Amino acid sequence: MKTRFETQDADFESRVRKNFAEQKVMQLIGASLTLVEPGVVEIEIASREDLTQQDGFMHAGIVTTVLDSACGYAAYTLMPVDSSVLSVEFKVNLLAPAVGDRVRTRADVKRFGKTLTVCTADAFADGKICATMLATMICRKAKPNKN
Amino acid sequence: MKTRFETQDADFESRVRKNFAEQKVMQLIGASLTLVEPGVVEIEIASREDLTQQDGFMHAGIVTTVLDSACGYAAYTLMPVDSSVLSVEFKVNLLAPAVGDRVRTRADVKRFGKTLTVCTADAFADGKICATMLATMICRKAKPNKN
Amino acid sequence: MKTRFETQDADFESRVRKNFAEQKVMQLIGASLTLVEPGVVEIEIASREDLTQQDGFMHAGIVTTVLDSACGYAAYTLMPVDSSVLSVEFKVNLLAPAVGDRVRTRADVKRFGKTLTVCTADAFADGKICATMLATMICRKAKPNKN
Amino acid sequence: MKTRFETQDADFESRVRKNFAEQKVMQLIGASLTLVEPGVVEIEIASREDLTQQDGFMHAGIVTTVLDSACGYAAYTLMPVDSSVLSVEFKVNLLAPAVGDRVRTRADVKRFGKTLTVCTADAFADGKICATMLATMICRKAKPNKN
Repeated sequence: MKTRFETQDADFESRVRKNFAEQKVMQLIGASLTLVEPGVVEIEIASREDLTQQDGFMHAGIVTTVLDSACGYAAYTLMPVDSSVLSVEFKVNLLAPAVGDRVRTRADVKRFGKTLTVCTADAFADGKICATMLATMICRKAKPNKN
Repeated sequence: MKTRFETQDADFESRVRKNFAEQKVMQLIGASLTLVEPGVVEIEIASREDLTQQDGFMHAGIVTTVLDSACGYAAYTLMPVDSSVLSVEFKVNLLAPAVGDRVRTRADVKRFGKTLTVCTADAFADGKICATMLATMICRKAKPNKN
Repeated sequence: MKTRFETQDADFESRVRKNFAEQKVMQLIGASLTLVEPGVVEIEIASREDLTQQDGFMHAGIVTTVLDSACGYAAYTLMPVDSSVLSVEFKVNLLAPAVGDRVRTRADVKRFGKTLTVCTADAFADGKICATMLATMICRKAKPNKN
Repeated sequence: MKTRFETQDADFESRVRKNFAEQKVMQLIGASLTLVEPGVVEIEIASREDLTQQDGFMHAGIVTTVLDSACGYAAYTLMPVDSSVLSVEFKVNLLAPAVGDRVRTRADVKRFGKTLTVCTADAFADGKICATMLATMICRKAKPNKN
């Protein structure tokens, strides 16, 4: 019952991969883009001691960082060539500790809109769901630039 | 109109600071605990290139990581000595890009409960609010342990 | 890929239907329980002029009322006989106006826990999704009573 | 530390009150607009048996309906004359049962934007906070019309 989405840009995958490479924090935390399809993105991250909270599990904020990027890029696959994507808001439920040696996330576009796109994403650790996100992304025409 | 909270543990500050020191990810991202009062916690983080998203701003997930820890510790100031705190869920609205050289967050307990505690937190960049969180924390009797 | 849930109470359906009948607001807004299965509940509501917001569509709060009850009862199907269910929090994204002559909602338990249960629910109007909810429900041993 | 907001429309109060009168569901549930200021709106509702959930308290969805309208109108006070307001999403934490003979809500604009506006709102019952909302509203140029 998943919706099939049409992309506006045949090169959506390379556009997403290029943008992901510009998210320097993805390198810091060791996240990698493992799937890019129209309306769907998967990102994985290995468990590492320097990503943990007080009990030795991956910090909820790091799981959220990966879920947020996955949602943003799932939305971005459907956006036009000369656009940029920003997070408007997201909500995360932490369902279980992120145990095991890696966390895998998968984001799906739930509703695509010209301005606002809503995505859901799940995070899995050791084959079980450990967190879920419901997020709103916005499409901007011109790319914001810090420099 | 802020509620004043009573702590159950006179040593709440050292308990919070010790726990914070165990969150290894706080060291990775360079966050520091700048205020610990009953029901209130502030955490700051310096802007750094390896924390950025594609446009050069601090990634929403990193801002969220700091907001989540601030909420967790604000709740934890009011919890009993032999307890641990975990995030149940949180929602974040991104209000503006996290510009400037540091992000300051402040979390306040909105409603303290024996099991569930609700907190709000704001993040400020360059003196202006850049994100806001509404979060639910849970108090656990026994500390979960990975080892 | 949906999880199959086991109930702790063979009479879960009559327990849920009896509880639903006690939600007087469901009668006020004309909502009816159309499906009760382990971890799944559907509730429908007819469009009515006295349920509308300023543009003539069903008010987001009424759609939310139905989604919230659907999530609560989906969780309640899995709870023990002598328990009660309460909403801890929920988040709703409004995806499209609730057009057409009725709104149908379906809630699924995403993660069942002894204390906290997380559910998702979608609302459909005219065959298309119009809203989605991510909710946390709590199981209480003793039933709260106003009288 | 609350932000002071400037309105774009001197007649914002009558515009809000006219729009509120068009929300037919507000009459059904007996809600009344008790304060309209730039960026701030208060709505009250009397407790009534036909608004209750299974334990005799006001249903969380009805509290949410009032909070949502309060947030929408708080945002709408700051929007231009020929605009309409719609809810994008909201998140509600239920903090205590809505006891007593009425529920009072107050919504404040947290960040006003040309397209998206973020609001917070609290609900009080018997003088104590019983629920809190964090919501995103969108400004539309042309008013949607069902007819």
